[in-house]
Amino acid sequence: MAGNSFGTLFSITTFGESHGKAIGVIIDGCPPNIDIDEDFIQSELDKRRPGQSKITTQRKESDTAQILSGVFEGKSTGTPIAILIPNEDQRSKDYSHIADKYRPSHADFTYQQKYGIRDYRGGGRSSARETAARVAAGAVAKLFLKKHGIEIFAHVSSVGPIEAPNLDTTDLNALLERRENNIARCADPATANEMIALIDEVRKAGDTIGGQVSTIVRHVPAGLGEPVFDKLHADLGKAMLSINAVHGFEYGSGFIGSQMRGSEHNDIFIKENDNVRTRTNFSGGIQGGISNGMDITFRTAFKPVATIMRDQETLNESGEATTITGKGRHDPCVVTRAVIIVEAMTALTLADHFLRNMAYTNER
Amino acid sequence: MAGNSFGTLFSITTFGESHGKAIGVIIDGCPPNIDIDEDFIQSELDKRRPGQSKITTQRKESDTAQILSGVFEGKSTGTPIAILIPNEDQRSKDYSHIADKYRPSHADFTYQQKYGIRDYRGGGRSSARETAARVAAGAVAKLFLKKHGIEIFAHVSSVGPIEAPNLDTTDLNALLERRENNIARCADPATANEMIALIDEVRKAGDTIGGQVSTIVRHVPAGLGEPVFDKLHADLGKAMLSINAVHGFEYGSGFIGSQMRGSEHNDIFIKENDNVRTRTNFSGGIQGGISNGMDITFRTAFKPVATIMRDQETLNESGEATTITGKGRHDPCVVTRAVIIVEAMTALTLADHFLRNMAYTNER
Amino acid sequence: MAGNSFGTLFSITTFGESHGKAIGVIIDGCPPNIDIDEDFIQSELDKRRPGQSKITTQRKESDTAQILSGVFEGKSTGTPIAILIPNEDQRSKDYSHIADKYRPSHADFTYQQKYGIRDYRGGGRSSARETAARVAAGAVAKLFLKKHGIEIFAHVSSVGPIEAPNLDTTDLNALLERRENNIARCADPATANEMIALIDEVRKAGDTIGGQVSTIVRHVPAGLGEPVFDKLHADLGKAMLSINAVHGFEYGSGFIGSQMRGSEHNDIFIKENDNVRTRTNFSGGIQGGISNGMDITFRTAFKPVATIMRDQETLNESGEATTITGKGRHDPCVVTRAVIIVEAMTALTLADHFLRNMAYTNER
Amino acid sequence: MAGNSFGTLFSITTFGESHGKAIGVIIDGCPPNIDIDEDFIQSELDKRRPGQSKITTQRKESDTAQILSGVFEGKSTGTPIAILIPNEDQRSKDYSHIADKYRPSHADFTYQQKYGIRDYRGGGRSSARETAARVAAGAVAKLFLKKHGIEIFAHVSSVGPIEAPNLDTTDLNALLERRENNIARCADPATANEMIALIDEVRKAGDTIGGQVSTIVRHVPAGLGEPVFDKLHADLGKAMLSINAVHGFEYGSGFIGSQMRGSEHNDIFIKENDNVRTRTNFSGGIQGGISNGMDITFRTAFKPVATIMRDQETLNESGEATTITGKGRHDPCVVTRAVIIVEAMTALTLADHFLRNMAYTNER
Repeated sequence: MAGNSFGTLFSITTFGESHGKAIGVIIDGCPPNIDIDEDFIQSELDKRRPGQSKITTQRKESDTAQILSGVFEGKSTGTPIAILIPNEDQRSKDYSHIADKYRPSHADFTYQQKYGIRDYRGGGRSSARETAARVAAGAVAKLFLKKHGIEIFAHVSSVGPIEAPNLDTTDLNALLERRENNIARCADPATANEMIALIDEVRKAGDTIGGQVSTIVRHVPAGLGEPVFDKLHADLGKAMLSINAVHGFEYGSGFIGSQMRGSEHNDIFIKENDNVRTRTNFSGGIQGGISNGMDITFRTAFKPVATIMRDQETLNESGEATTITGKGRHDPCVVTRAVIIVEAMTALTLADHFLRNMAYTNER
Repeated sequence: MAGNSFGTLFSITTFGESHGKAIGVIIDGCPPNIDIDEDFIQSELDKRRPGQSKITTQRKESDTAQILSGVFEGKSTGTPIAILIPNEDQRSKDYSHIADKYRPSHADFTYQQKYGIRDYRGGGRSSARETAARVAAGAVAKLFLKKHGIEIFAHVSSVGPIEAPNLDTTDLNALLERRENNIARCADPATANEMIALIDEVRKAGDTIGGQVSTIVRHVPAGLGEPVFDKLHADLGKAMLSINAVHGFEYGSGFIGSQMRGSEHNDIFIKENDNVRTRTNFSGGIQGGISNGMDITFRTAFKPVATIMRDQETLNESGEATTITGKGRHDPCVVTRAVIIVEAMTALTLADHFLRNMAYTNER
Repeated sequence: MAGNSFGTLFSITTFGESHGKAIGVIIDGCPPNIDIDEDFIQSELDKRRPGQSKITTQRKESDTAQILSGVFEGKSTGTPIAILIPNEDQRSKDYSHIADKYRPSHADFTYQQKYGIRDYRGGGRSSARETAARVAAGAVAKLFLKKHGIEIFAHVSSVGPIEAPNLDTTDLNALLERRENNIARCADPATANEMIALIDEVRKAGDTIGGQVSTIVRHVPAGLGEPVFDKLHADLGKAMLSINAVHGFEYGSGFIGSQMRGSEHNDIFIKENDNVRTRTNFSGGIQGGISNGMDITFRTAFKPVATIMRDQETLNESGEATTITGKGRHDPCVVTRAVIIVEAMTALTLADHFLRNMAYTNER
Repeated sequence: MAGNSFGTLFSITTFGESHGKAIGVIIDGCPPNIDIDEDFIQSELDKRRPGQSKITTQRKESDTAQILSGVFEGKSTGTPIAILIPNEDQRSKDYSHIADKYRPSHADFTYQQKYGIRDYRGGGRSSARETAARVAAGAVAKLFLKKHGIEIFAHVSSVGPIEAPNLDTTDLNALLERRENNIARCADPATANEMIALIDEVRKAGDTIGGQVSTIVRHVPAGLGEPVFDKLHADLGKAMLSINAVHGFEYGSGFIGSQMRGSEHNDIFIKENDNVRTRTNFSGGIQGGISNGMDITFRTAFKPVATIMRDQETLNESGEATTITGKGRHDPCVVTRAVIIVEAMTALTLADHFLRNMAYTNER
């Protein structure tokens, strides 16, 4: 209720501050008998980890996941899976200079207003460090979905004004490989190079820049999603908007769809190899809030990171004007790491709706 | 859980199909001692009502709200407020020709896949008729928010390619009046005329067109929204995405923000008449998921309505190719009525977060 | 959240005051394709209805259920089922004499303290009239459970000091018939006669008396109930304790079990016709919070109704001593009607856990 | 949803098996600015700890709590408080002899049926070891309630047939001290001695015995609890019934109340030193599900522990008859340690309802 949980049947609760002892997550509702591949969980965390390349923050965290419960002899037991990720490189002293200052476009001011107290070290709970816990839980969700043949692919589709061209999405695994071949995590190598150059330039200027992540989910069975409020795309949208720095979400035709006419936008049903498909997919695989079996497609927009290596005007807690100096270790462009968080939240949303749909299948 | 409820403390559950006896809503968690102005509730419903102008569906529904419980001598009592809206002009025979056909980009196919049964008359539960119940509940939420000085304004900011210019938003009440002065519900009169002409042209062509709604919420106290998953903008986004035909949501700088640099995007804190404000408002009034006291601003994109007055190819329930004929009474452009639904869902989201925040204020 | 909902997957929300226009319920999460037998729903309501015999309140309500949504051609569609029960015989003037007085052991004082306002007519929301909505919803749950072979039987096992002997429970249907053959709703005819005589004596004395209801649920598959907090018996207990006037709940060996030794209390597993059973059933069919396939057995204790036909001392809203006069139409002993409410809440709890268990069966 | 969470606004989620690496809890919704006294949390855990006296299990666990998050400079910050309790003395080999056997009246059979897999070591998740996490969380809830003057007292009121006499409850702190002066945790010293002798006798016989715990909560403000389903006593009942081995719950007059008449049971309102009170308290401090400001009183019945040191017949996973030998380290009577768990769950329930009530106080 205090907003640190996500999902209803496949549900997670995260905890931990940027500069506390540890962060972590409890997964409640992971079905039993799922193979819990710890190496896979770790490999997912490694993709989100800080310090992995020259275009990410240089904070050093090994982000080593420890499974504390819910797994017996390599399989989930149906009981809560707790995963702990100790904090290692906190360097709290880095933050003493901002203890009583409100960093622009950060959550310092709003936390202080809401709670009357805040852990000012590294943003405390508002730090993107919290998302490591989501990635660990998302990896478990992916293992569950994989058993049911569902594939998830996300990549960086734009950095600032640089946009990737449309991809041939026939083979998502091939795209995934191409994505992992560059530090921008864009599946189009040429665009990736441009992105890396831009991020590097921005970093040297002590600045940051925004970007977008595009996602495809394949082999989702028809029927996932609940009508009215818990539409599949509404829950995916909430999942994305809950990620730090996200300012926009669209699925299928998205914002462009609002400029189209019904006669061009309608997806005509056809039969292909005995399967019902649609000729186009402006619906993004979701109709009336429920998956129709086509690829689910959506796009997530990230604002530029608020921490910049420049002096900025601001106020302190007493409301006096002051200056804040750019210091610390931060990301010039968050999307290259956020790709993994997007995939994790996508997996968690789908796992939850998969189970919700299961509850009623007896009578279908 | 089956997705017909929204909100946690100020919570609503809706029911009813397009062609059943009635639709309605239970509001659970409306605080006591709120003046429940029935005329206001009805006036809100009138703005959403079908048949109100030449550019909306001609289905005739008076949409008369009956309050069944929870109100005593004009005031809320803290117990559930049930509101009933009988269906009047169902004309179920209109739908016999589609009983076994899947209308393109409608929810016929997905409901059949999910449930193995569906009320094919007018889309059943997937009909936008369900949103009348939201508008009634939203009106109650507005009455609660009004007591706390919170104002909500939404208008049609684009229809197809026609976009309204930026508005002077100093006086939201004046904008509201200007919006209600035209059937397009755009607060810029010149743009409104263009929109009306376009919608009329589209209607005559038996086609439909998409559009966008822009929203401003003013005087929201700092502190609303929960960190991590239930961020205020994440819940607003889910609220918007749960409305029929919505394909996109952005707040503050939105998708454009993903092209900006941190040095231009950061909102600098300043003091103005003893209040903490920000010089710009790319954050859209929300930082770290929590309101900061500035205007909350967001934009919602609607796809074109799927029902068009033209013949379309499709499949029937047996998977055979067939043709569906355009018939019935439908909206050429949904946004002129959707404005009220956007405001209603906004009010419900804010009322809920207002109460959630209240729960902890004792210790602040 | 404000406490008018019950259940997570098979979920109900009730509304309505004793003296408003109507009471009712939304069932959200009833699976599709269940035969919704309206006559059965009405027959259940008739068993709870006031005025049905000389030992119940003489308030006249036909309690006619109207299904407003969620049912198409006699079958549930998976969408919310709304059921409306109009109030007919309110006689609000009966309550003018208590408008500003706190009736002893009623909820007048606590509602006033909690909300600062209350609908004083007939207890408003705290009236047992609300339970008619539960009975209607419980009837739908029973129709669902019946499809899966689950049987529920409850009867009045004690009134004041009069206790029914242990029953032969081989044939629950036969017991149900015997229960319905007398107005005390006790399946032992001799005890029933004693109970009726006692209730009649109490009624003539202007007094009321408490009693107990015993319940058996048969053919519940093993596996229902969630470990730790949502144990099956914990949710059954909450369901029972949520019924007006209930002061106690025990399952299996119950309070007597606290006097026993492990060596006599342990239920030994045996094999019978290829089924795993237990030799005794002190566990009441639930072990570790999860059903084991044996009969689920529990007992619910009701205090005497607070409204008595005698003058009583009390305070008014200003805190002044005053006298309250016994007036109105009330039950001398609530258990004869409460039996049906107990069955309804039992059915709702089991339907919910049935669906919750279903969500995970894929991987079992 | 999978049942490992309790509470809505002051909410906890527990994790961990008896023989895994650790158990623990996340508290989500603890208000900010509460003094988090770690010594107090530890002292509560010490009272529940195994091995504390000759009449408890001899398993050695220091049960050392580590706070991982949510506390900054000794105060809660409003973010999730995660508490970790490492397992130390697992001795998994003790359990090899029961790996494929169903222990009578344990959860082995039901877990296997539900999940198709189970961690057989020490009952896994069904072990009472999980309750250490509840005690840690309950200690935090107590610190919150203490700030608002609310006192909780529980003690062992019966062991087998030995029952404590009624106590003079004027000074709950004095009772608490007297309770802690004996290893039976009964506030009546003479009864305590009898209880200890009985438990010792039972232990030597390789047997176990049940008992009861009585609880008083004082200075609860009027208004806590939600009408209809989330009545304060319904949530207290669920809280108690969720504790391992609990078979019964009653509040106020309880089961005895079902034998009384309304004229003797009604609690007459009186004025005492300007406060509204009731002359008697058969209502147990709760009317219509809402606290009335009087002492809240209830009683919880525990069955005898299922693990006995004797040979017992049973079945193995293949359904074959076999014998299970009494081995391991277990409690002859659980109530002496359960007292602390009862207090913890009471504190958690009240903290939750305190916050829920707060959400609406603005308009009262």
